[in-house]
Amino acid sequence: MKDERTTPKYGIPEAIDLPDRMWPSQTVTASPVWCSVDLRDGNQALPDPMDPDQKLEYFELLCRIGFKHIEIAFPSASEADFRFTRRLVEEDRIPDDVYIMGLTQCRPHLIDRTFEAFRGLKRGIVHAYIAASELHRQHVFGMDRAKTLEKAVEAARQIRARAEAMPEADIRFQFSPEEFTDTDLEFTLDLCTQVYEAWGKATPEKPLILNLPATVERRPPNHYADMIEWFAKNFPHRESVSISVHSHNDQGMAVAATELTLLAGADRVEGTLFGHGERTGNVDLVTVANNLYARGIETGLDFSDIRGVADVVERLTGMPVYYRQPYAGEYVFTAFSGSHQDAINKGVHRLGEAPDKFGMRWKVPYLHIDPEDLGRKFERLIRINSQSGKGGIAWVLEQDYDIEVPQDLRSELREIVQAYSDRMGREVASSEVYDLFRSEFLEPEGPYELVGYWPRPDREDPGYIHGEVRIKVHGEEKAGEADGNGPVSAFVNAVRPFCSIGFSVDDYHEQAVGKGADATAMAFVPLKLDDGRIVYGAGSDSNIDQAAVRAIVAGLNRLEGS
Amino acid sequence: MKDERTTPKYGIPEAIDLPDRMWPSQTVTASPVWCSVDLRDGNQALPDPMDPDQKLEYFELLCRIGFKHIEIAFPSASEADFRFTRRLVEEDRIPDDVYIMGLTQCRPHLIDRTFEAFRGLKRGIVHAYIAASELHRQHVFGMDRAKTLEKAVEAARQIRARAEAMPEADIRFQFSPEEFTDTDLEFTLDLCTQVYEAWGKATPEKPLILNLPATVERRPPNHYADMIEWFAKNFPHRESVSISVHSHNDQGMAVAATELTLLAGADRVEGTLFGHGERTGNVDLVTVANNLYARGIETGLDFSDIRGVADVVERLTGMPVYYRQPYAGEYVFTAFSGSHQDAINKGVHRLGEAPDKFGMRWKVPYLHIDPEDLGRKFERLIRINSQSGKGGIAWVLEQDYDIEVPQDLRSELREIVQAYSDRMGREVASSEVYDLFRSEFLEPEGPYELVGYWPRPDREDPGYIHGEVRIKVHGEEKAGEADGNGPVSAFVNAVRPFCSIGFSVDDYHEQAVGKGADATAMAFVPLKLDDGRIVYGAGSDSNIDQAAVRAIVAGLNRLEGS
Repeated sequence: MKDERTTPKYGIPEAIDLPDRMWPSQTVTASPVWCSVDLRDGNQALPDPMDPDQKLEYFELLCRIGFKHIEIAFPSASEADFRFTRRLVEEDRIPDDVYIMGLTQCRPHLIDRTFEAFRGLKRGIVHAYIAASELHRQHVFGMDRAKTLEKAVEAARQIRARAEAMPEADIRFQFSPEEFTDTDLEFTLDLCTQVYEAWGKATPEKPLILNLPATVERRPPNHYADMIEWFAKNFPHRESVSISVHSHNDQGMAVAATELTLLAGADRVEGTLFGHGERTGNVDLVTVANNLYARGIETGLDFSDIRGVADVVERLTGMPVYYRQPYAGEYVFTAFSGSHQDAINKGVHRLGEAPDKFGMRWKVPYLHIDPEDLGRKFERLIRINSQSGKGGIAWVLEQDYDIEVPQDLRSELREIVQAYSDRMGREVASSEVYDLFRSEFLEPEGPYELVGYWPRPDREDPGYIHGEVRIKVHGEEKAGEADGNGPVSAFVNAVRPFCSIGFSVDDYHEQAVGKGADATAMAFVPLKLDDGRIVYGAGSDSNIDQAAVRAIVAGLNRLEGS
Repeated sequence: MKDERTTPKYGIPEAIDLPDRMWPSQTVTASPVWCSVDLRDGNQALPDPMDPDQKLEYFELLCRIGFKHIEIAFPSASEADFRFTRRLVEEDRIPDDVYIMGLTQCRPHLIDRTFEAFRGLKRGIVHAYIAASELHRQHVFGMDRAKTLEKAVEAARQIRARAEAMPEADIRFQFSPEEFTDTDLEFTLDLCTQVYEAWGKATPEKPLILNLPATVERRPPNHYADMIEWFAKNFPHRESVSISVHSHNDQGMAVAATELTLLAGADRVEGTLFGHGERTGNVDLVTVANNLYARGIETGLDFSDIRGVADVVERLTGMPVYYRQPYAGEYVFTAFSGSHQDAINKGVHRLGEAPDKFGMRWKVPYLHIDPEDLGRKFERLIRINSQSGKGGIAWVLEQDYDIEVPQDLRSELREIVQAYSDRMGREVASSEVYDLFRSEFLEPEGPYELVGYWPRPDREDPGYIHGEVRIKVHGEEKAGEADGNGPVSAFVNAVRPFCSIGFSVDDYHEQAVGKGADATAMAFVPLKLDDGRIVYGAGSDSNIDQAAVRAIVAGLNRLEGS
């Protein structure tokens, strides 16, 4: 007997003896078969489990996404689960290519009850599990190995007999030794081999599903991969079984464990949307599937409206999707920092150059996937707080208001936004950025108010302008003759006499805001002051000349305003 | 030129050529150096970044937990960051064994400004980064390799010179080539070697920190491990550098990436508490550290009050910790399903047997770590919904009310709780379970009301009782003589004449509820009816005999009550 006082409380999990390990040099190039366990593992762990109508709506969502294996209930465990299974069958709710799966223990009356629930079903999977680990066998159920083998083999034979009594139906068998990652590998191999033989119906076309779960994440993911590779190498009928993995996230590595077991030869993955399930949850299939998608692998699952999927799941489960959940979370396509914002901004604008450089069309700083592929708009990609930079602020105005702020003006705008954010002590909404832009550059307060500008082209040289300007200065209306080589230059000549400081206008930046015939022009005009300073104003009008002269007035107001 | 139309949008990341790969057969047996970047990477990604006082409180939390490397600011990027750094120095806020770290780009005026912020500091780390990947170098900054090398080397020389001007201080240098996992390995090796030589001050005791970040998680974690192993094998001065990893969670695998890079030789880990940071966040150091802790590895970080840590972080960041976040989340030490609850219940009660079986003292179904080590009480471990089993319900009463419900009574109690949960359509609080237990077993309504019971031992045989019972039946008080071989038997003899159905009491289960001298006894008494049925009642009193007779009265009321 060991002395309990010297036994450590915890231990490092024993490594797997796998001398010719292959998985670390493999690459995932094809999708596994996906099996959703949302309606079982997921549902049982909700503080408020779904009622039958909610489960039905969730089932239909899973079918729309593209799941072909869906564990829908533990039909023998409760009347509610039994009735739900019957409802799917009797109301003909199951698409032709979908296998529903029912869970059962390896106990004769529960298996019988499961088949009662399956009566009339066209295709389905009976999923029997048994405690195989010493911890569960001996310490929870008080069963030795021989008894465990016997019960599993009997269950397989009974399931075979009951399946054969439904010759019209395609009934598959899935067997799970719990908890695989805490069980002696040789025993698991023996157990699964005996179950395989007792079932006796597995073929490469209709394989037995051997689901080898990490019921609790007790090991690093490389160990799980080692165990799957060992099992796949040693199982005597590899071609007639589908090796399935089932990860939990107790150590935060369920997604990686799933990926590494795929390298190790797993064919099928069980999990839930957004990782619902007991404790830290099951592996999140949205993340695993989109990881493969982002490498160009066809997954058969449609997440092109990921927020729509999240909305349904949130409503039915009553549980919000985590704001940092990969692909689906609120913040995951958000950049707050200035340098990130600048880089994304440049990267997206340069996308056209990427194919030659990187062998793929999508290669953008800080974004390994195009948010639009998930139906996520760019509008929330860049968000503004006191840490944000000029690129991000410009991005927000461009995305949300079609305003392309010139480079020269961005630093100034950033200071204004930063000061505002510091003062408010919180994130700044895009409408607030626009308001700051508007009150600073577009409609600043000041002494000047344009009453009207009527430029008239010269009869002989239509490029030359004779026009009229009417402008209020401190409320007093003044009129001037506008003559010059173009409408802007003529306007400047007309208003200069009313201004207290001399200025000229060399060039200006103009853009269309909005699309189509009613597009509004936005002009950014730098006033070059006689003392060397540059002051920008912005103006907006359906006529580009009017937009430019409004910009000049705005610039003058900025200069002389409060 | 490739034809853009045939270029795929995404690609599988190119594998690393590592023929003699070692890491998959390694085991993590010791803790890395931990570096918190909460106040930089974390803070910049908060919708509402922390103000200086909040940053200070967070800094003190990090020190209390045990972090020795803490990135506190980008001192040259803003006045706020500069002043925060100065405040830590001038107010002498930095513990003697803590290195604060300041981030800077490889630009001379920013490096100078960083050292201005560090004036008077006793020990610190200057952290310079440069874009090394082609995507960032060429497509964002327009820099070629030669220019990148030149700028990094100049920065290292400048930092050396400025550090040497502070001979009293212990100033270390950290260099980060961004984004390492998307950069040609040979180029990174060349860049880091030239920086190492330009710094020229690295020793095994005061190593140069080479931080090799997965700035964006673009690759599976085994690739990151391959790259770290390749780099560690090929870097010419391995003994005088500390190889640091920095993972982001875009593909949900940051924790695993960190663990696998530790296998591959990384010495140091950067991350944040609960994984705050841009997008999906940085790696969660709480998870990584507790994974090691749960394998018996001393981490130097104290999470013995993990909810206390979470409360401070939630308050300062304004961001809730995810309810499934490993170790810290609300639900992670929760079991809703009946079979899980039974197994945990049995496992915890059998803990004493585990050392001989498993070589460690903690080995419990569904719990790879003892929640009490994190200061998490068992009281919320098992929560009750309509999927819960009798073991879980018994557990809740035992943990929260010290009531040990006998096996025979559990199925009946479960049905009552399940019906209630179904009716309410939500989780059932432990107080509600108690109320259901109380109104069903302890104080059921019915015709009987005990007025008093005065058992008196016989003068010659004190085991024999002569006593008096006064009891109301439908409001009418009755009195009886109590004679029998013990107080319970005497009571039964006295009340039997007042009852409409015959019964006897063979044995009963008694327990102390509450601790110490004022403990209350709880008795569970099965009434064996003459028609063969068994009906349980429960009673509570400071005197165990009185508790037992109250239980009998409760049983009679259950039998004849409404």
